[in-house]
Amino acid sequence: MGRPDWLCKPPRDMQRAMLSAEQLAEIESLRSALAPTRRATVPALEDLLFRPLPVLDHGFIRVIDYMGDDAAIVQAARVSYGRGTRRVSEDAGLIRYLMRHRHSTPFEMCEIKYHVKLPIFVARQWIRHRTANVNEYSARYSILDREFYIPAPAQLAAQSASNRQGRGDVLEGAEAENVLAMLRDDAGRSHDHYLALLNEGETRDPNRQGLARELARMNLTLNTYTQWYWKSDLHNLLNFLSLRADPHAQYEIRAYAEAIAETVRAWVPAAYAAFADYRLGAVTLSAPMLAVLRRMLDGETVTQAGSGLSKREYGEMMAALGRPA
Amino acid sequence: MGRPDWLCKPPRDMQRAMLSAEQLAEIESLRSALAPTRRATVPALEDLLFRPLPVLDHGFIRVIDYMGDDAAIVQAARVSYGRGTRRVSEDAGLIRYLMRHRHSTPFEMCEIKYHVKLPIFVARQWIRHRTANVNEYSARYSILDREFYIPAPAQLAAQSASNRQGRGDVLEGAEAENVLAMLRDDAGRSHDHYLALLNEGETRDPNRQGLARELARMNLTLNTYTQWYWKSDLHNLLNFLSLRADPHAQYEIRAYAEAIAETVRAWVPAAYAAFADYRLGAVTLSAPMLAVLRRMLDGETVTQAGSGLSKREYGEMMAALGRPA
Amino acid sequence: MGRPDWLCKPPRDMQRAMLSAEQLAEIESLRSALAPTRRATVPALEDLLFRPLPVLDHGFIRVIDYMGDDAAIVQAARVSYGRGTRRVSEDAGLIRYLMRHRHSTPFEMCEIKYHVKLPIFVARQWIRHRTANVNEYSARYSILDREFYIPAPAQLAAQSASNRQGRGDVLEGAEAENVLAMLRDDAGRSHDHYLALLNEGETRDPNRQGLARELARMNLTLNTYTQWYWKSDLHNLLNFLSLRADPHAQYEIRAYAEAIAETVRAWVPAAYAAFADYRLGAVTLSAPMLAVLRRMLDGETVTQAGSGLSKREYGEMMAALGRPA
Amino acid sequence: MGRPDWLCKPPRDMQRAMLSAEQLAEIESLRSALAPTRRATVPALEDLLFRPLPVLDHGFIRVIDYMGDDAAIVQAARVSYGRGTRRVSEDAGLIRYLMRHRHSTPFEMCEIKYHVKLPIFVARQWIRHRTANVNEYSARYSILDREFYIPAPAQLAAQSASNRQGRGDVLEGAEAENVLAMLRDDAGRSHDHYLALLNEGETRDPNRQGLARELARMNLTLNTYTQWYWKSDLHNLLNFLSLRADPHAQYEIRAYAEAIAETVRAWVPAAYAAFADYRLGAVTLSAPMLAVLRRMLDGETVTQAGSGLSKREYGEMMAALGRPA
Repeated sequence: MGRPDWLCKPPRDMQRAMLSAEQLAEIESLRSALAPTRRATVPALEDLLFRPLPVLDHGFIRVIDYMGDDAAIVQAARVSYGRGTRRVSEDAGLIRYLMRHRHSTPFEMCEIKYHVKLPIFVARQWIRHRTANVNEYSARYSILDREFYIPAPAQLAAQSASNRQGRGDVLEGAEAENVLAMLRDDAGRSHDHYLALLNEGETRDPNRQGLARELARMNLTLNTYTQWYWKSDLHNLLNFLSLRADPHAQYEIRAYAEAIAETVRAWVPAAYAAFADYRLGAVTLSAPMLAVLRRMLDGETVTQAGSGLSKREYGEMMAALGRPA
Repeated sequence: MGRPDWLCKPPRDMQRAMLSAEQLAEIESLRSALAPTRRATVPALEDLLFRPLPVLDHGFIRVIDYMGDDAAIVQAARVSYGRGTRRVSEDAGLIRYLMRHRHSTPFEMCEIKYHVKLPIFVARQWIRHRTANVNEYSARYSILDREFYIPAPAQLAAQSASNRQGRGDVLEGAEAENVLAMLRDDAGRSHDHYLALLNEGETRDPNRQGLARELARMNLTLNTYTQWYWKSDLHNLLNFLSLRADPHAQYEIRAYAEAIAETVRAWVPAAYAAFADYRLGAVTLSAPMLAVLRRMLDGETVTQAGSGLSKREYGEMMAALGRPA
Repeated sequence: MGRPDWLCKPPRDMQRAMLSAEQLAEIESLRSALAPTRRATVPALEDLLFRPLPVLDHGFIRVIDYMGDDAAIVQAARVSYGRGTRRVSEDAGLIRYLMRHRHSTPFEMCEIKYHVKLPIFVARQWIRHRTANVNEYSARYSILDREFYIPAPAQLAAQSASNRQGRGDVLEGAEAENVLAMLRDDAGRSHDHYLALLNEGETRDPNRQGLARELARMNLTLNTYTQWYWKSDLHNLLNFLSLRADPHAQYEIRAYAEAIAETVRAWVPAAYAAFADYRLGAVTLSAPMLAVLRRMLDGETVTQAGSGLSKREYGEMMAALGRPA
Repeated sequence: MGRPDWLCKPPRDMQRAMLSAEQLAEIESLRSALAPTRRATVPALEDLLFRPLPVLDHGFIRVIDYMGDDAAIVQAARVSYGRGTRRVSEDAGLIRYLMRHRHSTPFEMCEIKYHVKLPIFVARQWIRHRTANVNEYSARYSILDREFYIPAPAQLAAQSASNRQGRGDVLEGAEAENVLAMLRDDAGRSHDHYLALLNEGETRDPNRQGLARELARMNLTLNTYTQWYWKSDLHNLLNFLSLRADPHAQYEIRAYAEAIAETVRAWVPAAYAAFADYRLGAVTLSAPMLAVLRRMLDGETVTQAGSGLSKREYGEMMAALGRPA
């Protein structure tokens, strides 16, 4: 997960695609206002504050607010009166210890709030993380914009043959073109009809009453964009990342998780480094796998047949150890 | 909320619309199997167990399992060794006291599990109740059936003029017909194309790879039916009902809330009666409203202008008291 | 709940009782450090930041960090791109509307963190509020100070005759003195023996091993002080206040709730005012009470016997309306 | 964790220590009442139902109610219409897959409720598991019995020299006797004074008012027994077990976790077996540990100095692999 340039400064034209000139001006005006505070402050995250980081074709995440920093984790773990930092290296060591031994409560002492624009089918996966606070744009009150997610060609994949929930080969040529056209047409037509059902605004037909907003929205397709404010403590945010930045997660939500991961790295660098080592890059070996590993370390060559593991588990274990299956 | 006959025994043809013959046979076979248990048992809820209660045009709720009864609430409130019941009237009195004084934890001691079939836009409202357990049918693994919610004519309403999130007059004549046709066509076409994108099964075109399930689903409209297992404790279930069985809730989710309310009434009659009196039928008066009320009780005629309340609040108060605004 | 002077500036000697000179110096040094931030900032709360507000004889609360302000509630309710404030009066009106209609999610967008020192028996009530984050000082790792809560004479009350969980008359004379002496002696002796069991530090007896900390702590009495970091969103904090700042709450936890209420008033004045009107000062009338009220408003004199309410409910209703029972 | 005989049938005299004859008769009467149910039923757990399983010197756990079984996990994972079981072996395989890949929601579909009697200092650790439902015996309303936890001689340990939160050598001889005497005396005296402060019952002194119950309880020591009803879903119960049945957990709460583990094994044997393999007996290797392991598997001898790991991490890794450090 290198840090691409666009994360820090989206090119002008991408910004235009996502946000109106008025919205961008409002954001820039907020960004320029500084106030003094006694609270813990993280300059690297202040730099990112309010700025939309583009995700997918029309989506983004923006950090709206935050509370705490690496030192706040240490302060809570020690229940101390000061800010907790003795020496940076000592703090990092304690944070690594807490992460390794699953001490979750000190990480709950940091909090962050995002503004996210995302397709509805991604929102449906995301909302399953229950320990968070959400305010979503309501299509009962307001009208959704004509924006839908259409996958980039590189993401247009067939069903995986081996994995019931994964993707296989990328579609090409005419098939790819037809798929994209179908997705674009259906989403567009559904949104056009949604506006026709509403019968509001300048083009309103006075001979029709129009359908209530809470009903008309049901005509939209699941790739229509919605948006929300989403707030989480750091512990639950890391749980989100460990599930959604994982290669098994669907690409579309992973793209959001990776953008969020960049902001977490800027915010709490010591906690993020510990997370990368002890969660993202870690491997859990079951009791039967551990028994096999011990035989291997004793010099024995253990085949799948002799391992007592199922083919699937044996394959997972060898992949984790970087050895041929 | 009278108890319509169909809640107990859906007519044969409604059942056919919702469930295949095979599924119905599986359900009836489950229903016929009885086992002895030492646990608290509620015969009135046993009668309803597993049976689909129809909601909307293709949806249903079914009680799958439950734990506890009215006596379990009493038992927990008293932390007693026995089953808690002394006399039914005493228990009902204690339950009323607990409900009135917002003692929520004894109601958390009862648990119920439903199988629900519902349109996706209803599922998106429902899932906002975070303190529950959910397993949803996954369109990453499986293919969604060709079933969508199309409102009954009586539910086809215009936007309310007075309430930004409500419904106004029912649409009629040609406009209603056109709306229904548009909803049906768009949902049907989107699902047809969804199947075409998938390119699976008997009609598979061997010259196309087909699109991964996790991607193809984005072409579906929000009135497509999904289903899930949903489990909640009684306290949080009553919170759900107080928000979703409320006249301000959208009709479609209210229809589910009302069917659930019937099952709660069968399950814990004393708790449900207390809930009806102290929550559903109750009114909360703010401090400024209370000041107005005291003046009224002293015989004063208080106009909106003289009340110190906003027009909106004054109107809400008079409506609650059943007096002209 | 007027704002006593000591909330803002504890007298020097109270501070000395609670905190060591070293701790106070550390706090003042933190307070003097200012950093620029782009985040929402509340000067009135910045003034209180880090300062211990005394509660009971040795306890305190201190605000350690916060996120959001009144405008953040509005911003989330509108899912807007800017800071949400149009005009202060408009924002206050929206906040009142949200509070009145139980829209809880916008209030979840604000977060606050406290450092609290409190007796263990109060901590046991407090921790029942589950939707919060806590890091408590651990007596498995560290040694608890010799500090216990001894009630002030005005709080030394007999059991209430009418209320099974309340307090009655204040004890006086010799009985009061004996009670205080007994509480002081038992807590003191238990702590002395706790230190003797531990057998650590300068007075260590080299002929004894000493008992493990995790065991020795069981000898302490429930009025021993502990401390923790406690973090909550505003919605759940207001739930805490509505239950714990209530006259039915035990005095000792109410003292903490009232100190917290002062900080909330400084932090989000519009939300706090709405909370005072629609929650703290509000009254909920059940359906049967409402029926009685309507008869009263029609000029009827309704006695308890004719009301259909139990004596208890009738009394509660008349008390709420400020009328003789 | 073998299954000791006493778990199934506590010897008569242990029962007498925990429960009065009246309580035991009430329990046996409940146990003898059988009702027919259509719900999933687990005979092995029915056998244990209501029976107190002794823990520590005066504590116990009792299963009061349950919902679901192994098949309910499968049913939710498949969102099926039937009871989910195809073949027992297939179900077990799916459950193992779900456990290995951290699919938590299907395990949330099972629920269990316990009645627990436990020392207050254990209750304070236990309550940190927030995703559960609790009703505790209230010392504001009622009077706590004269029962305290006094460790068995084998549990009377010194502070560990190497582990800041662990236990070291067992105390012996005069020191042990003195410790036990001190614990017994202080708890006993505090409870005697608690009763004197209350001044209730037959021995009431009419010349004293007595102290309110909510105040008098503060004189009790932390090893006094309390009790509660505690209800959890299976997913969160397994989290509880993985932390509290762990060798790093304090012995006293571990004793409760082990008794609970026995009931879980009787209730959902397939889920418990998967839990034992993939959680209890599993080892998580961090990214740096994994790098070291790969070098070892390639035949290299890796010393701590050459490993890049801290001494502590290196030691933890070698212990996990069963190799000399």
